[in-house]
Amino acid sequence: MQRMSDLIAEILESPEVASKKASVVGIGIGSPGLVDQKAGTITRPVNIPNWEDAVPIKKIFEKRHRLPVFVDNDANACGLGEACFGAGRGKSVVVALTLGTGVGGAIVVDGKVFHGAKGYAGELGHTCVDPEGPPCACGSLGCIEGYASANAIARYATELVAQGRHKSWLVDWSRDGTPITSKMVYEAALKEDSLALRVISRAGQYLGVAVSNFCVALNPEVVVIGGGASAMGDLLFDHVRREIDMRVYFSPYYTTPVCRAQLGEDAGFTGAACLALSGEN
Amino acid sequence: MQRMSDLIAEILESPEVASKKASVVGIGIGSPGLVDQKAGTITRPVNIPNWEDAVPIKKIFEKRHRLPVFVDNDANACGLGEACFGAGRGKSVVVALTLGTGVGGAIVVDGKVFHGAKGYAGELGHTCVDPEGPPCACGSLGCIEGYASANAIARYATELVAQGRHKSWLVDWSRDGTPITSKMVYEAALKEDSLALRVISRAGQYLGVAVSNFCVALNPEVVVIGGGASAMGDLLFDHVRREIDMRVYFSPYYTTPVCRAQLGEDAGFTGAACLALSGEN
Repeated sequence: MQRMSDLIAEILESPEVASKKASVVGIGIGSPGLVDQKAGTITRPVNIPNWEDAVPIKKIFEKRHRLPVFVDNDANACGLGEACFGAGRGKSVVVALTLGTGVGGAIVVDGKVFHGAKGYAGELGHTCVDPEGPPCACGSLGCIEGYASANAIARYATELVAQGRHKSWLVDWSRDGTPITSKMVYEAALKEDSLALRVISRAGQYLGVAVSNFCVALNPEVVVIGGGASAMGDLLFDHVRREIDMRVYFSPYYTTPVCRAQLGEDAGFTGAACLALSGEN
Repeated sequence: MQRMSDLIAEILESPEVASKKASVVGIGIGSPGLVDQKAGTITRPVNIPNWEDAVPIKKIFEKRHRLPVFVDNDANACGLGEACFGAGRGKSVVVALTLGTGVGGAIVVDGKVFHGAKGYAGELGHTCVDPEGPPCACGSLGCIEGYASANAIARYATELVAQGRHKSWLVDWSRDGTPITSKMVYEAALKEDSLALRVISRAGQYLGVAVSNFCVALNPEVVVIGGGASAMGDLLFDHVRREIDMRVYFSPYYTTPVCRAQLGEDAGFTGAACLALSGEN
């Protein structure tokens, strides 16, 4: 937080801002954890220990920088960025997913994040697609995060390789102890590696079940998928599209396009800027 | 449609309306099938054959009655009725489910049905909770409709009885060929019948998986459950609540209440009236 705050101070003191060539309307923050957008607090970001109590990040930054501060969940910020300036531009209802360490999600309606009653909506990565599936860090079982995150893809490939019964480029590439990554799975799949293709089809099918659920519940105009594993593109997405075709009963009348995010690592801060520009909590 | 239209004409010609004691602002219709709310058309209601093409119900009724007509899906109308005048009254985000022949669903946000991009949102009964589950009439597999509708509950009880290995009131009550209904399952469960309790716990657990998915995606303020099988009340709902407690990672901070619908069979036409009162398509 200190580093973030110092960087903001640097920008505010820059010649562009000082000379009013650029004007600053506010500060937007995308943060991990449970975010209360109105109160501007963050609770229990899974990967930062000792943040059990709500941290009043909005108040802290407003006090130092004397500008309005807007806070949202990091996945919501990514989704908002893609919906406003990326692959969801101009679309009314956007479902955005990020396949990274976990699976982040956001629902954006008419250019605004859908927050639900208390601000916790959009946690699409914890959609259960198998009630008895593998345990998830969130406490549930069979979350889509356990099948389609970059980590889950790497983990399943590692399990299959460890069985020692398959011929695969991944066996060769990991023989010296190199940990298998989702990028390696993708590279092997490009060489028509059966094991890698099997891993990707499993991830894509489960992801497709979850996306089909979002389609029937939310009828989005587009589903935008970003994050590390989205680099696999159609190799992964075609499985998702097949599940939609099979499962979503209105798909003959209205098929939901599934496409790759466009902003890459810029999605999060683009969305955080959108929060500040919208001027709404 | 002729009968509906004649009934409307009867009301419009009634002394109350003719004497202006009651004023009529419009006609609201809740219909099965794929409804295009803006165009006012209905396509492919599953239980009415030969409606493959879009039927312009709005235009037909407006022409005869010379009043604005508002059309929505029947499940959306039920959910809207409950959200505005029933168990969801005063709540910001309401997820409504109807456990009848199938499982109907609706998402109501600030007193309005959430329609998604093309009007097909809210088909929550076709949330998949097991990718390899039983085939559903919609073409998918493992939809919650196949586990938690009144029909599915009766069907599963019938299957267990047919195995002929269990002692149960349902065995006795169906010996003369009486078909088992979800109401009979409930009545047996009230007598602590193990088979009936098993059937209800299975339905409640799968339903709880789906409801947990709605909680993480939509963070509703309340989940309202109606329809025939909702008569089971806490006997069914306690399983749903347990799944939410276990699966929804923010449930220690914010637990979503699950409660029974209040309007019974009036929910649909109450919601249809809300459509007309809102004056929006």
